[in-house]
Amino acid sequence: MTVAETKRIQIGTYIFQRLAQVENLKSIFGVPGDFNLPFLEHIYNVPQLNWIGNCNELNAGYAADGYARINGLGVLTTTFGVGELSALNAVSGAYVEGSPVLHIVGTSATTAKRANNLGVHHLIPNKNTWDASQPHDVYEKMVAPFACVIEKLYDENMDTLQTQIDNAIETVYKQSRPGYIFLPANMANMAMEYDPSKPLELGKYFSNVSQAEDLAQKVLDKLYEKEFAVIADQWWKTRRAPLNKFVKENKLHCFSSYLGKSILDESNERFHGSVAGNLSCAGSREALQKFELAVHFGVVLNEMNNFGYWYPKDDVKEVIEVGKDFVRLDGELHTGVDGEAVFDFMMTKLDASKIKHDESLVLPGKPGVEQCQDKSKPVTQISLAATAENYLRPNDVLVSEMCSFLFSTPDIKLPSGLTFISQNYYGSIGFALPATLGASLAVKDSGEDRRVILVEGDGSSQMTIQELSSMIKYDVKPTILLLNNEGYSVERVVLGPTRAYNDIQKNWKWTELFKTFGDVEGKSVSTRVDSVDALEEALGKDNDKLKFIEVGLEKLDVPWRFGFLCGKAKK
Amino acid sequence: MTVAETKRIQIGTYIFQRLAQVENLKSIFGVPGDFNLPFLEHIYNVPQLNWIGNCNELNAGYAADGYARINGLGVLTTTFGVGELSALNAVSGAYVEGSPVLHIVGTSATTAKRANNLGVHHLIPNKNTWDASQPHDVYEKMVAPFACVIEKLYDENMDTLQTQIDNAIETVYKQSRPGYIFLPANMANMAMEYDPSKPLELGKYFSNVSQAEDLAQKVLDKLYEKEFAVIADQWWKTRRAPLNKFVKENKLHCFSSYLGKSILDESNERFHGSVAGNLSCAGSREALQKFELAVHFGVVLNEMNNFGYWYPKDDVKEVIEVGKDFVRLDGELHTGVDGEAVFDFMMTKLDASKIKHDESLVLPGKPGVEQCQDKSKPVTQISLAATAENYLRPNDVLVSEMCSFLFSTPDIKLPSGLTFISQNYYGSIGFALPATLGASLAVKDSGEDRRVILVEGDGSSQMTIQELSSMIKYDVKPTILLLNNEGYSVERVVLGPTRAYNDIQKNWKWTELFKTFGDVEGKSVSTRVDSVDALEEALGKDNDKLKFIEVGLEKLDVPWRFGFLCGKAKK
Repeated sequence: MTVAETKRIQIGTYIFQRLAQVENLKSIFGVPGDFNLPFLEHIYNVPQLNWIGNCNELNAGYAADGYARINGLGVLTTTFGVGELSALNAVSGAYVEGSPVLHIVGTSATTAKRANNLGVHHLIPNKNTWDASQPHDVYEKMVAPFACVIEKLYDENMDTLQTQIDNAIETVYKQSRPGYIFLPANMANMAMEYDPSKPLELGKYFSNVSQAEDLAQKVLDKLYEKEFAVIADQWWKTRRAPLNKFVKENKLHCFSSYLGKSILDESNERFHGSVAGNLSCAGSREALQKFELAVHFGVVLNEMNNFGYWYPKDDVKEVIEVGKDFVRLDGELHTGVDGEAVFDFMMTKLDASKIKHDESLVLPGKPGVEQCQDKSKPVTQISLAATAENYLRPNDVLVSEMCSFLFSTPDIKLPSGLTFISQNYYGSIGFALPATLGASLAVKDSGEDRRVILVEGDGSSQMTIQELSSMIKYDVKPTILLLNNEGYSVERVVLGPTRAYNDIQKNWKWTELFKTFGDVEGKSVSTRVDSVDALEEALGKDNDKLKFIEVGLEKLDVPWRFGFLCGKAKK
Repeated sequence: MTVAETKRIQIGTYIFQRLAQVENLKSIFGVPGDFNLPFLEHIYNVPQLNWIGNCNELNAGYAADGYARINGLGVLTTTFGVGELSALNAVSGAYVEGSPVLHIVGTSATTAKRANNLGVHHLIPNKNTWDASQPHDVYEKMVAPFACVIEKLYDENMDTLQTQIDNAIETVYKQSRPGYIFLPANMANMAMEYDPSKPLELGKYFSNVSQAEDLAQKVLDKLYEKEFAVIADQWWKTRRAPLNKFVKENKLHCFSSYLGKSILDESNERFHGSVAGNLSCAGSREALQKFELAVHFGVVLNEMNNFGYWYPKDDVKEVIEVGKDFVRLDGELHTGVDGEAVFDFMMTKLDASKIKHDESLVLPGKPGVEQCQDKSKPVTQISLAATAENYLRPNDVLVSEMCSFLFSTPDIKLPSGLTFISQNYYGSIGFALPATLGASLAVKDSGEDRRVILVEGDGSSQMTIQELSSMIKYDVKPTILLLNNEGYSVERVVLGPTRAYNDIQKNWKWTELFKTFGDVEGKSVSTRVDSVDALEEALGKDNDKLKFIEVGLEKLDVPWRFGFLCGKAKK
């Protein structure tokens, strides 16, 4: 056994250097604070990285989430307590939606932690006011539900630092869930030993591979038996390219789950829309029912995907589930297996000649929305969906807030390569605007030419509106559709259609926001539209600008699916 | 024993009715969401209460904190998960600063909790993706560090509802710390039994009184021995009036701790400024050193109050501490005793004739800042402090952000009856603006004629800027001084004076904000000033308006105290 040759490096610099080794990762989000300033200083040692200073920590967390959805990892740094807690809801959302966000928290110094003899600012004091000692780990203890990995760096464990830091980055990336590094303020400048020959291992399976290989063959053998359908669900966004290759090359009929929207190429003629019980797209459920066998990749179980306790097995005799961390086959649940490993083995072991096809099968369920007949009329949810469908182009990034429009999106036929970003299950309003900043920066950092389009409601946008300022500061140019219905229309349909609690301050001058938030160079254009014609015209021009389009809508106009969800409308 | 005659009432209505029994409590803050909508609906059964819909939940939490500081209780309601977590940092701050905020969280229905068979939106899913069951109490478990009371209402415990609801309100009020009520969405409309003869007991001591009475006499006996000084610290804001009566009627020399600012009447000639070791006001520490005995009420132990590990006993031979939950006397620590009870007994048992006075004592330490000589010059931290001191009037409410100006405030001589609001120890930037909304509504609800003045930095104000909109919506008229130094000046002095991470987007049109955020009726005036003259002129006019004054400052200009705190300036 040879002893690795180690080098010395400052901890802060090591962390940033490692992050810069993740493909396309060039932006670090956050807000400076006393306890992460020493860490931040090290970003200047790694020229590939840019500091993105957000307006607040919640916004920074949402932006990192949006970035992660495009580039595979989003990084956020805050000070502990005040900053960390402010960002917690964004991290929670990233956990729920499966977004790989690494939160690096600058904590109190190890000297203070050890001495523990006088309250440090930002930190909850002892409940007994006579006692000056303080639980320095109070916040660190809280994040367990929101993290797939938590690494607490400590200067008494200098030997494990490389392993800990690498493990945090690798685990967040592979698990596609958030994780934490807690970095005491006095450690950023400390020197650590590291082995420069050790690579970052971002694709590591979390289980041994022999079980996965065995299961892969069993799944394939089952699939060879008869014509089968493919259902793509949320967790398989990490296997988007090979999954699309699989369905296209083998001419497989395929479906999205509600949360799996945009994983499959919807321009594929064998794509039959989203299935979610009675919330399914027109014809989609009926198409699914034509099969006796389906394979469901990346299963997510919740009330959006499984509306009314509907499951694919209610419509298909036999469903094989290849999930994130399990396989269900022949009624048997196999846990502790990395489902992505199973899938990867399936792709390599596949014998395409064994796949059965019924070429005569003609299925209903083609995505696509009702087209608008009279474009001179006011915009409605129906005409908005049609306009969006016509406007979208291949490889666009579409971000939808948890607003009325989101409930139209399953019906919209998305062009090839489009990435759809939302918080369809967690549903934290305010997410989409900063996530759009993050997604826009991710596209920029990746060097690709993709448009980013945000659709959001007025109620939700007020939550995080100041992040428009960062779009100017960091020079990104998404197109923003602001749906103005004077409040929380989605909530109005749930309860209190005329109640004040569902109103917002309705007099905002939306089209002045970018100017007020510092667009002194004319990077943006803002306009209000009320007819479909005007909306189309606004979408069609000024394509070199950051575009803000305020769209007037009726207060109680929501897509059919939302009314149905609330038990207040028929399909 | 007679059996109480009970009545029936819907739970949501009971909660709001009880809240309306708290003196001056008329505003309820929050954001609507699916899980608190059924509760919100009940506010309309209690006409004394007004719904204040904030722009986001963090802002709602800060506003409830500001409200609580004036009216003794602030109430906030959100949906669980997304809303609750967003507000968590505000609740944490309220805990640290001792502000009585009650957070009522609308949770998933008890039916869903019991069935626990499919993920409910907003809620963290099971870590094992094959398992549809979900820990419905994941968020409820987290809030323990931030709460002095947690009441989880449950429909299997209908008999305890009155006790639980009353206990939450009473405990938050008395403890002056935040607490939680978790109200499942399906319970707001359920009917509960309650005893209408049971009053809310807001002043209840938390310990038995005989120990308190005994200790009170012992403290008094000690104080009768020799001339003593009084130090008022943060927890004694709940005993502001009797404490001021005590020092004035008995002609006692008195001091504030750093965090105790504004509890004592500073127009009192025997008030000698704030003491906090080397951060003390000029002459204050020397004045304190003239005493051999001091009584320190409402002790808070932390690095702001006890800068450089300084304690009052370093300057005074003997210090009696009467704290929130303890008494320290003759070197002995008595815990488990309600310090407010001790104090109340002291006030009733006091024999003023036994207090010793040395009328010849002449002490240094008079608060007051250096006056400005040339008002045509640009505003500096020094001239800003002088302008503030001259501008303030009795009974004003002064809110300071954790910005540069905060570190001038200990030196400013405050007029009688002024309430000073800040987060001097927790230090979550962004707090002050929504807290000003809350404080302004509290003043309005109390029917008093008090001005509310906010001083804050540009960096911090960006965090929560949209809450300006609520000032228009709810028609309050604070005066806002926005210190524009193009970023985080306080952080620049800590590290990175020229680093981009301490810059914000500097081109905001601050004076356009109110118009953009919907001031269509001309309720506000906004102006930019750069000289002291112009600042004074702006402060002097338009007193019937919501006033926004942008004050230009140099990037690295901070008060002496902050430089000193960072080890970068001399006193």
